[in-house]
Amino acid sequence: MLIVAALGGNALLRRGEPMTAENQRGNVKHAASALAALIDQGHSLVITHGNGPQVGLLALQSAASTDGAFPLDVLGAESAGMIGYVIEQELGNLLRNRLFATLLTQMKVDSRDPAFARPTKPIGPLYDKAIARRLAAERGWQIAPDGDKWRRVVPSPRPLDILEVSVISYLVEHGVVVICTGGGGVPVIARDDGSLVGVEAVIDKDLASSLLARQLKADMLLMLTDVDAVYTGFGTPQARALRNVGATELSGKDFPAGSMGPKISAAIEFVQATGNPSAIGRLEDAVEIVKGWQGTRFEASSNPSGIT
Amino acid sequence: MLIVAALGGNALLRRGEPMTAENQRGNVKHAASALAALIDQGHSLVITHGNGPQVGLLALQSAASTDGAFPLDVLGAESAGMIGYVIEQELGNLLRNRLFATLLTQMKVDSRDPAFARPTKPIGPLYDKAIARRLAAERGWQIAPDGDKWRRVVPSPRPLDILEVSVISYLVEHGVVVICTGGGGVPVIARDDGSLVGVEAVIDKDLASSLLARQLKADMLLMLTDVDAVYTGFGTPQARALRNVGATELSGKDFPAGSMGPKISAAIEFVQATGNPSAIGRLEDAVEIVKGWQGTRFEASSNPSGIT
Repeated sequence: MLIVAALGGNALLRRGEPMTAENQRGNVKHAASALAALIDQGHSLVITHGNGPQVGLLALQSAASTDGAFPLDVLGAESAGMIGYVIEQELGNLLRNRLFATLLTQMKVDSRDPAFARPTKPIGPLYDKAIARRLAAERGWQIAPDGDKWRRVVPSPRPLDILEVSVISYLVEHGVVVICTGGGGVPVIARDDGSLVGVEAVIDKDLASSLLARQLKADMLLMLTDVDAVYTGFGTPQARALRNVGATELSGKDFPAGSMGPKISAAIEFVQATGNPSAIGRLEDAVEIVKGWQGTRFEASSNPSGIT
Repeated sequence: MLIVAALGGNALLRRGEPMTAENQRGNVKHAASALAALIDQGHSLVITHGNGPQVGLLALQSAASTDGAFPLDVLGAESAGMIGYVIEQELGNLLRNRLFATLLTQMKVDSRDPAFARPTKPIGPLYDKAIARRLAAERGWQIAPDGDKWRRVVPSPRPLDILEVSVISYLVEHGVVVICTGGGGVPVIARDDGSLVGVEAVIDKDLASSLLARQLKADMLLMLTDVDAVYTGFGTPQARALRNVGATELSGKDFPAGSMGPKISAAIEFVQATGNPSAIGRLEDAVEIVKGWQGTRFEASSNPSGIT
């Protein structure tokens, strides 16, 4: 099967953990063993990843530079190079006879996307409220709560088209393991003359991965994170893990806020467009999720649906 | 013809110019028009680029971060994403029906390379001597003179093998314009168990491009910079531009120090290994250099050699 596997930001850097090169490499090494197991099962893999903490840190570093801050599109490209490199290297160490390609990915978005007026995507470190407010005032940031802390938020427009998708397809056909669409891809808009230019935004990597999976006609979209399944009533005594759901059955259910919303949308969009399954679950369970033994699986037909 | 075209650091950032995103984009736009002209002539292009100023700036930013400095391999991967993105976007705006791929490149080097004990590659900004000395003491840098200023220098081991070369070949065969080996590639060494790990070094992008051109069996290696030719007796009244030289004729000649040395070595290595020509010249003359009308051309046979 051709699987698009999306690594959550938490798979690369645990919440609150300092973003040292060592921490990132350790986490990537852990993720690589889960991904290598999938490839060992005979699957073709296209790997995507988030970049929220990384692009936020690069933005902080860049803002402190005397040469002036780089825009988020350029920083996003930096983060894709940095993260993709470590994934490629660690995965290559586990699968020494495979070919790998880490590809810079530009993602077309609409300059009239309402997200540009309403920033929602958290990037960078977690701050106490008072510090976050001071930074917002000093730097013109928008901020929003994230759990009991605060973070900078930036626009997250809807991904519309992956410019390098034919290249990714060629590589997959040739048996290459591709790492791409890092951080959801570098957001670009078309100017009036049709030329492209980067914009200050960070795309949701799950929505981007869903689009990639559709454009590649993948057999499965797999979103790997640090929770074992999608829950209804998360955090309440009525919490229930969803195991197997028809893509049309989810409306009106009570999902946790935060990153699960885009994951569920991404899963449903893929299933509805292709008829192929998608799944959300824990990184360590990747092989079992693909087999249908773990995680939450989304399918086109309303299978005996699984509030377990 | 398949041409490996190496963009000098000066093509991306002029000496002494502040490294703002705008300056870099402006310079890349200028370089893109020269490269687009080559593609318009029907040539297949693999584009490489330096990263000296960029990786040095990223190292400074990273060193100032509270999360601890990233090593040079990770920073090199960041710089390749950043620079490759802008080249791909600006070239794509000039050639809208072509496919592009910006590929992360790992370059194998020997852990016993003597360069690790003797840093020579300048990175980052230019400093006055006193400031450079203070920074060297504070940060454990090695420094060296660069013109009338001083810069940080890091090890620059010899490039030995490009790990992604089959992927690059495959893309070239499919008509994709490939941007790769940014900053000479990310330097990696093999551990005793054969696994790879990045090292603190920056590879010379001309020697790396020469290796790439050999591994791709390119028809020509083209090194684009801000001087119109290789000179003997540069800066003296006896200065003479070399036009057309056999690769064996250069020994004992008096070449300028600095970046021209590796360029000439890179040119000769390519010619000797493949029998195909290489050339050094000004970015704006790219089309004329390939035709043999401009620049310094290196060929296997000792053509009527040209001290013009």
